[in-house]
Amino acid sequence: MTQQLQIIKSQNLKEKPEVAGIPFGSYFTDHMFIMDYTAEMGWHNASIVPYAPFEISPSAQALHYGQTVFEGLKAYNVDGEVTLFRPDENFKRLNRSLERMSMPKIDEEFALSALRELLKIEHDWVPDGENQALYIRPFVFADESYLGIRPAKSYKMLIVLSPVAGYYGAQLNPTSIYVEDYYVRAVRGGVGEAKFAGNYAASLTAQQKANDLGYEQVLWLDGVHQEYVEEVGSMNIFFVRDGQLVTPELNGSILPGITRNSLITLARDLGYEVVEERIHINDVEKGLTDGSITEVFGAGTAAVVSPVGIMNIHGKDYRVNNNEIGEVTQQLYENLTGIQTRKLEDKHGWVFEVTSTVK
Amino acid sequence: MTQQLQIIKSQNLKEKPEVAGIPFGSYFTDHMFIMDYTAEMGWHNASIVPYAPFEISPSAQALHYGQTVFEGLKAYNVDGEVTLFRPDENFKRLNRSLERMSMPKIDEEFALSALRELLKIEHDWVPDGENQALYIRPFVFADESYLGIRPAKSYKMLIVLSPVAGYYGAQLNPTSIYVEDYYVRAVRGGVGEAKFAGNYAASLTAQQKANDLGYEQVLWLDGVHQEYVEEVGSMNIFFVRDGQLVTPELNGSILPGITRNSLITLARDLGYEVVEERIHINDVEKGLTDGSITEVFGAGTAAVVSPVGIMNIHGKDYRVNNNEIGEVTQQLYENLTGIQTRKLEDKHGWVFEVTSTVK
Repeated sequence: MTQQLQIIKSQNLKEKPEVAGIPFGSYFTDHMFIMDYTAEMGWHNASIVPYAPFEISPSAQALHYGQTVFEGLKAYNVDGEVTLFRPDENFKRLNRSLERMSMPKIDEEFALSALRELLKIEHDWVPDGENQALYIRPFVFADESYLGIRPAKSYKMLIVLSPVAGYYGAQLNPTSIYVEDYYVRAVRGGVGEAKFAGNYAASLTAQQKANDLGYEQVLWLDGVHQEYVEEVGSMNIFFVRDGQLVTPELNGSILPGITRNSLITLARDLGYEVVEERIHINDVEKGLTDGSITEVFGAGTAAVVSPVGIMNIHGKDYRVNNNEIGEVTQQLYENLTGIQTRKLEDKHGWVFEVTSTVK
Repeated sequence: MTQQLQIIKSQNLKEKPEVAGIPFGSYFTDHMFIMDYTAEMGWHNASIVPYAPFEISPSAQALHYGQTVFEGLKAYNVDGEVTLFRPDENFKRLNRSLERMSMPKIDEEFALSALRELLKIEHDWVPDGENQALYIRPFVFADESYLGIRPAKSYKMLIVLSPVAGYYGAQLNPTSIYVEDYYVRAVRGGVGEAKFAGNYAASLTAQQKANDLGYEQVLWLDGVHQEYVEEVGSMNIFFVRDGQLVTPELNGSILPGITRNSLITLARDLGYEVVEERIHINDVEKGLTDGSITEVFGAGTAAVVSPVGIMNIHGKDYRVNNNEIGEVTQQLYENLTGIQTRKLEDKHGWVFEVTSTVK
């Protein structure tokens, strides 16, 4: 598929907000990318157009049977140059999610080149403040007007952009998490490893329960035994145990995070041993009790790294590293954001310049 | 909540199609119901308007995090009178689904009265052919333009109507089903018992696999053990075993079907013993082998009753009742549709007349 990209510029540019003050994902830029899919024509009508509402059929399948997947990544303003962090991995994962949900794949290279064009147009929207970025949200949904239950025959893909400060108000302040042992997010054989819209809707009740109990995030256990650690909130989870970095192994129900993958590589570069394994919640409890687990943190695109200060396991609160960010967490955060913002060497070729024609 | 219902009639009425020839859920009537919810105002703007596309934000939460639930029921044309079958149960279940998905509940009585008004306007759309009906699709989705992960603060509820013939081409022809032991639809602690859009998207890959293997429907096993029978396709499942009617007990991951519930009551009225229990797939295999299981059928609003003629269990095909519809299946089908179409006495007060002011 080699598509033309049509560009229609907005005639009414918005005022740019003070990024520091706006909630995550509440303010959008002037333009968006949109393209259509039909079974007959494949992906077509690729366009950059003014960000605006569009028409949808009341019988669009996404609104009835939920065929919707998405991605999330960030563009950084590095001394005026717009950069991306491993965007190729996001489009690869988008295709894996599309396949899992019986949706048509996209041309990854074309999508990335369209994103670059969009970012060139929205260059001035990429904020340069500390921890600020332009959040990028590609998504694909079924728009066929039809109520039979089968994969849809028409879809739309869009990319919208939103300037963001840190995902959490105070980003590196430790969060409190509640280990959920009633509600389940995902199970092997299910759709947990896809970045599937429904996984997030399915998490809301448990999130509300954790909040009501006074905790900020949910720690999800596996769906089969409800004993093995899977994710925290919408992030992957890491432990520092006896000086090693430990994280649940990918098992089909855990989202294969790009931040997760980057941190594993980075930690090895820094000389840490990294272990991916099945982690029993009772072993976490033991490790927090005997002091072998010294740090816990979540990892994801939105927050990058989010230290955990309090874990409620089986009804009991455990403090992690005296409810302060740990040394390893801080080091990994600084190294990853250092690469993202080009303060540190990019040994793995993770950083893409938007204006460059090379990548 | 006592709302006014605004009515705006279409100026361009569509031609009514030959219902016998149209695929399920592909043709819609002239009008639809729509109302809005905001955290500040609750449900408001209840209106009957021409069926037409509407505007949605590119950042509407339903398109990103999948907060969408629906219902399905049918209006029947009984000698010119439009009737509904247990519509109160559908709106009750809609509220249970909304609650599970952290969405705002509706006023069930108001929704039912709005549906009646809509059906009075669309009276001529309710087909009177054998097995034909007007399919009614209420649904609710999150339309707030916001990308933070939390329950949305604004929603839309719609009701759209679609004239349908039988769901399957030849409705009471036995189907072939494949017992799926890799993919999982739902797990206890999850959202399987909600009529949640994402559950249907999550089922498509397995459905495709079954089709590729030459079977029409998937039989779903439980998510924990992958051994206990849950649903078939998007229907509940029933067995006739030693003359008793047996169906999986509701366990949190099985949809509490209204047809399921009605058939249980009806079967008891007819003198059958009905057993709701955990059913191991190996016991199904044994029962088909030793002849104690004589009939198998699916039950749901769309198809009412759908006999199973072939079951593939652990890679082996079993014929059920010589691949013909069984006596009990036929009897239950005739009794249920007999009540729905008022040929038989409605002892339980299940049938609602649309024009009546009584119910």
